[in-house]
Amino acid sequence: MSIEEFRKNGYAAIDWLCDYFERIESYPVLSKVKPGQIKSSLPSSPPKNAEQFSRIIEDLDKIILPGITHWQAPGFFGYFPANASPPSILAEIFSAGLGVQGMLWLTSPSCTELEILVLDWIVEMMGLPDMFKSSGFGGGVIQDSASSAVLCAVIAARELTKTKAAPQGTQSYLIGYCSEEAHSSVEKAFAIAGLGRENLRKISSDSDGALLYSNLEEQIASDLFNGLKPFFICGTVGSTSTLSCDPIKKIGRLADLNDCWLHVDSAMAGTAAVCPEFRYLNDGIELADSYCFNPHKWMLTNFDCNCFYVKDKKTLISALSVLPEYLRNPRALDQPVVDFRDWQIPLGRRFRALKLWFVIRSYGVDGIREYLRGHVKIANKFASWVEAENHFELTSYTGLNLVCFRVEGDDARNEKLLNTINETGSIFLSHTIIDGRFSLRLCVGQVRVTEQTVLQAWEVIKTCASGIEP
Amino acid sequence: MSIEEFRKNGYAAIDWLCDYFERIESYPVLSKVKPGQIKSSLPSSPPKNAEQFSRIIEDLDKIILPGITHWQAPGFFGYFPANASPPSILAEIFSAGLGVQGMLWLTSPSCTELEILVLDWIVEMMGLPDMFKSSGFGGGVIQDSASSAVLCAVIAARELTKTKAAPQGTQSYLIGYCSEEAHSSVEKAFAIAGLGRENLRKISSDSDGALLYSNLEEQIASDLFNGLKPFFICGTVGSTSTLSCDPIKKIGRLADLNDCWLHVDSAMAGTAAVCPEFRYLNDGIELADSYCFNPHKWMLTNFDCNCFYVKDKKTLISALSVLPEYLRNPRALDQPVVDFRDWQIPLGRRFRALKLWFVIRSYGVDGIREYLRGHVKIANKFASWVEAENHFELTSYTGLNLVCFRVEGDDARNEKLLNTINETGSIFLSHTIIDGRFSLRLCVGQVRVTEQTVLQAWEVIKTCASGIEP
Repeated sequence: MSIEEFRKNGYAAIDWLCDYFERIESYPVLSKVKPGQIKSSLPSSPPKNAEQFSRIIEDLDKIILPGITHWQAPGFFGYFPANASPPSILAEIFSAGLGVQGMLWLTSPSCTELEILVLDWIVEMMGLPDMFKSSGFGGGVIQDSASSAVLCAVIAARELTKTKAAPQGTQSYLIGYCSEEAHSSVEKAFAIAGLGRENLRKISSDSDGALLYSNLEEQIASDLFNGLKPFFICGTVGSTSTLSCDPIKKIGRLADLNDCWLHVDSAMAGTAAVCPEFRYLNDGIELADSYCFNPHKWMLTNFDCNCFYVKDKKTLISALSVLPEYLRNPRALDQPVVDFRDWQIPLGRRFRALKLWFVIRSYGVDGIREYLRGHVKIANKFASWVEAENHFELTSYTGLNLVCFRVEGDDARNEKLLNTINETGSIFLSHTIIDGRFSLRLCVGQVRVTEQTVLQAWEVIKTCASGIEP
Repeated sequence: MSIEEFRKNGYAAIDWLCDYFERIESYPVLSKVKPGQIKSSLPSSPPKNAEQFSRIIEDLDKIILPGITHWQAPGFFGYFPANASPPSILAEIFSAGLGVQGMLWLTSPSCTELEILVLDWIVEMMGLPDMFKSSGFGGGVIQDSASSAVLCAVIAARELTKTKAAPQGTQSYLIGYCSEEAHSSVEKAFAIAGLGRENLRKISSDSDGALLYSNLEEQIASDLFNGLKPFFICGTVGSTSTLSCDPIKKIGRLADLNDCWLHVDSAMAGTAAVCPEFRYLNDGIELADSYCFNPHKWMLTNFDCNCFYVKDKKTLISALSVLPEYLRNPRALDQPVVDFRDWQIPLGRRFRALKLWFVIRSYGVDGIREYLRGHVKIANKFASWVEAENHFELTSYTGLNLVCFRVEGDDARNEKLLNTINETGSIFLSHTIIDGRFSLRLCVGQVRVTEQTVLQAWEVIKTCASGIEP
């Protein structure tokens, strides 16, 4: 493809996206295809000869698009939002075109230094502790996801325990803790790190979904009594189910007393701290050894982009560094540099800092605040509508952007309601279990959502509910 | 940013890239900035107010671009190529704009099914064993990198050993093997998985860089004698240093005899198997439990894109699956579906299959073959030039696209030669150690490289060498 053909096709791609954004509300939010339908609609063998770009786009429209669940639709309220704002898409274009590998400082100094800079910016924007700034012992790095971040935290915690106290081979005595509401990635990290899923204690949470501190205290005491070594605690600020928050300050003191690494996972809720009025979320994170949140969830940045901060970068690097000859920096490099390959699982890395830089500059800190406040305001209203409505029950609302609710009746009725709503195609919701009962989740955080969208969603929900026998 | 502003800025981004590709040879390939220069050229605090897109682009030109090491320049011969072909960049634009999360089949069926389809296509294109196709017990999945792929392989191997034989808590008895030429990510995987770096035996290689089979045999026997449990072998087809290949067939039989998982890492060289004449690279991989290669290295696809195949998907899924309520599929889904979140480290995933689909269709299998053959032909010529030249020595050339060489004299002279070459800015090479001696590496695999580029590179190399005292 020549440069001029690329220009033509590039314009066409941009036009396609503009049309897509204009028409996005005309598609069913949740794809209606049956399992196997997409695959069987396409040739089972690769083409021998080159095909025209226009042919590919035809198939994209005809075959791929019906199999898309539209995360960018204003009516997507499921799971968590995927924040593909226009500036972040533009940044992705530059990143893809420059095609640089940021594994070492040398392999594109801008990739490393812009990342250091924007992660420092974010410390300031969100009122995070200064210990996470690059100027001291700590620092931040972009991971693909909160899953990889917690895995890095677990590995660093193990490294620290090893170097401090525990002899070789004591891995099976290392015990970690999180609440039963913590994200599934904590358990996954324990499985991957070979610590054993069973070595992660899932502490009960109270009726608000917050970790029960006294239970944690007791569990640690009991593990110590049994000769085990508590080494890691994951605190959650904004759980996936309901955005519930653990008592981080108390947990942090306990972690300190017991020489445990405290990781704070604030994947979606974290972004809210850009607004000073939501900084209560950060309460206690000055006691954390590591912290992460996902700009790709609620800070206008497209996937993947997780900001992961550590208090002590040396431990993380020591856990992850391997230095073969072919990656050795030239001795001519007379200053120490940051090589981010030693801060993450993979070796290679894209130029992801561009996205954060484009987003923060395009909206400004004030613009991001306005965006977040808008969503919280809408979620507030939705929660009040649910509360005011007979036959509906608000099962959880923490005051941010996620509202959980159910209709009167049993779980089967609520599950049926969820499926009926999603089958309409006009909106998409997901679910969770709260206090043992099936609840619907409505998360407000999409780039294109408005109060009008949520008002319409509420009408859809009520209409669907009225059609299902209690 | 309104849709119309996005259109305008999107066109501008495409134009910027077209200009960039046109001017790419006018930039020094290796960035000439000093550590800290980029960061200190930018404001240390985030902007309060929104800024215009044009202001960001100004800074991109003025501040960011000088800090770029141009992986897309035809004169980039270092490490491995980063294959950002025009069709793959276009696919990235669609992927960024659609902004879908492919963690579950349900969250965008096209994302999962297109991935299954193109990974099946690749099995056919590369003559890989049918056991890697999705129709049987095996299957393929896109990982971000070969590092994550080998980590998944190690974890799956451990899972299989656990379920088959070894009791709980025997992790420290599990021993893995690779050659000393294997990629650093194998050691990193052992570190992450908590198996202990010391539990990975790095077997000596012969003068061609291939694992010494008899040494592997002896090491396994000795480990067994000492009551340890060999469980994993990583064979390399195309090492990072020199593209050397391990004797996979023999290793595979040994792995089988000893109940070890065999993973074959063919990160760069693997793509060559698209051409039937290079299928000798696949010799023995029918004995592998898992296999991976990186289309982002040599198959015209931009980073990140690693194809990872397993013979037995059940083991991989069992090692990585965690199922919290909020990710549970609706019971209404009456058919089993593939949820790729259980095949990888993170939970979230981008729509990366689009890139492979765009690339394979845009070039056709024949076009990809032509591309690869062109590079091999050029590398062949370069190797012959080096061989024919007095004062130069060909230190390794396996007949593919990577040529290693040195100038007569000691390591210091060669290191100085490398730095001098890279300081010219016209080309960029990296280095390795072969048989204890410093060697320069010239890798031909960039999207824009031509015979002319390599001829010019050779002139630069000779000129630089003649200016350095032997």
